[in-house]
Amino acid sequence: MSLLAVGTVAFDDIETPFGRAEKVVGGAATYITLAASYFTDNLKIVSVIGDDFPEDELSYMKSRGIDLEGLQVKTGEKSFFWAGKYHDNLNERDTLDTQLNVLADFKPVLPASYKDTDFLMLGNLTPAVQKEVIGQLNKRPKFIALDTMNFWMDTAMDSLLDVLQHIDALIINDEEARQLSGEHSLVKAAEKIHALGPRHLVIKKGEHGALLFEGGKVFFAPALPLAEVYDPTGAGDTFAGGFMGYIARTGDLSFENMKRAVIYGSAMASFCVEKFSIERLKELSNKEINKRISQFVELVNFDADIEL
Amino acid sequence: MSLLAVGTVAFDDIETPFGRAEKVVGGAATYITLAASYFTDNLKIVSVIGDDFPEDELSYMKSRGIDLEGLQVKTGEKSFFWAGKYHDNLNERDTLDTQLNVLADFKPVLPASYKDTDFLMLGNLTPAVQKEVIGQLNKRPKFIALDTMNFWMDTAMDSLLDVLQHIDALIINDEEARQLSGEHSLVKAAEKIHALGPRHLVIKKGEHGALLFEGGKVFFAPALPLAEVYDPTGAGDTFAGGFMGYIARTGDLSFENMKRAVIYGSAMASFCVEKFSIERLKELSNKEINKRISQFVELVNFDADIEL
Repeated sequence: MSLLAVGTVAFDDIETPFGRAEKVVGGAATYITLAASYFTDNLKIVSVIGDDFPEDELSYMKSRGIDLEGLQVKTGEKSFFWAGKYHDNLNERDTLDTQLNVLADFKPVLPASYKDTDFLMLGNLTPAVQKEVIGQLNKRPKFIALDTMNFWMDTAMDSLLDVLQHIDALIINDEEARQLSGEHSLVKAAEKIHALGPRHLVIKKGEHGALLFEGGKVFFAPALPLAEVYDPTGAGDTFAGGFMGYIARTGDLSFENMKRAVIYGSAMASFCVEKFSIERLKELSNKEINKRISQFVELVNFDADIEL
Repeated sequence: MSLLAVGTVAFDDIETPFGRAEKVVGGAATYITLAASYFTDNLKIVSVIGDDFPEDELSYMKSRGIDLEGLQVKTGEKSFFWAGKYHDNLNERDTLDTQLNVLADFKPVLPASYKDTDFLMLGNLTPAVQKEVIGQLNKRPKFIALDTMNFWMDTAMDSLLDVLQHIDALIINDEEARQLSGEHSLVKAAEKIHALGPRHLVIKKGEHGALLFEGGKVFFAPALPLAEVYDPTGAGDTFAGGFMGYIARTGDLSFENMKRAVIYGSAMASFCVEKFSIERLKELSNKEINKRISQFVELVNFDADIEL
């Protein structure tokens, strides 16, 4: 079934303890669609770039089955740019530079062929833009997921609370869940966030895995312990892409299937961090993905002997 | 089979965001043996207290099947005392006071009936004291586990490295594993720590679960997401007690059984934090433990559909 992803397509400068990558391809929608492309070929993107974005990167995206009709190209303008430096623990990072460029006055325009999408992934963007995309649809998708960040909670809480009432799943990290809910306990945070609208909540905890909450049920997906993490940039978006890609592939919204979607999202994220930018995501095979899923199965599998 | 636990039996003053508890029962060996007592009744303790320790607490320990012959009581002296205050996130704490008292010149003395123990859990203490206990045994136990902390890495690294060569399992937290190995990646840390002696490594990550490493294999046990965490004091020792108690109960050192032991340890720790001190551990039933284990099974269980 069809999946529409909305978010940035951008350039990043990244510095980690393992090295530097300059002006490499990044952006939420890039990671989301690339990860999702391993699960479905009915993929559409709504975003904006300048005319500085490399043609061969766009060709590559098309070759992965990603429909770029909704990708606006602004002549004479520059693509969104972010520069960041990770601390030694790779869990924290400093933003060194943010140049909005084309993003400053981005108005999403959905092509007619996008307006009946079955699934919608709203990558991290101004909540008002996320809402605008929902407003342009002909019909309510089967499932809408949304990512956001602390910055919008600080600066645009009202419009964030508004868009939350129109979505099915919120995908955020633990720090964001705590800020949004005002609760330290993630169990309590989930209760409060459900009350804001989203029936499903996915809390990403980076190297500590991810939690899925729905209707009093909870599922925990581990992160794969890795010897090397080169670059965490895009891991959260890659998670969302794998998650929504798997849901779009199966069309199954049961809790059991959502659990599998969280595992697929975690598996895709575990690849993402192994190289800079989208390098690792470009070279994946289905065989590698299947193998990694079986590592996740193995990682948490135990034969319970529950009677004392 | 028999399990000998070595460590402190002490008083704690504890302050958490949920309240204060003054001069309550604490100490590594207290938590370890109490948790283990739900799995085996062949339990011995080596520790030291002053004559200020309440008689009814000792009677309670005896009623749980814990042999106190190795618990030295120093007349006219005071028991070890620790005071700490937890931050709002409950992951960090400040030590407000430490009074070594009887612990200052503690020399462990193993009664004759302790010297053939099948299993040995060395709670966090001076590495030299941990080594001394091993030296007093008649025969090598089937399995020796050891807990330690950053403080000994800073002040007694040589004797810590010495005792590590004589044990089977090291049970520490993620921060300690990183300090001991000099590696941020826990996978790399595990490789280095195995090379120091312990074939098994358990890394406790608090609310983020626990990892078990052995011979290139890895297992991840989640922590149960809890709505309320009242007091994290003793959770790590309770984990170790559940872990070693289950191993002593089964006598099975296979990796499959170690995984179950980690789950039992995690389950016991999840109870510990629900009330101050050992309160929650005192009132447990086997039925409650079995039910919690089934929650752990449910938490990570998914039906893998691994073929793309």
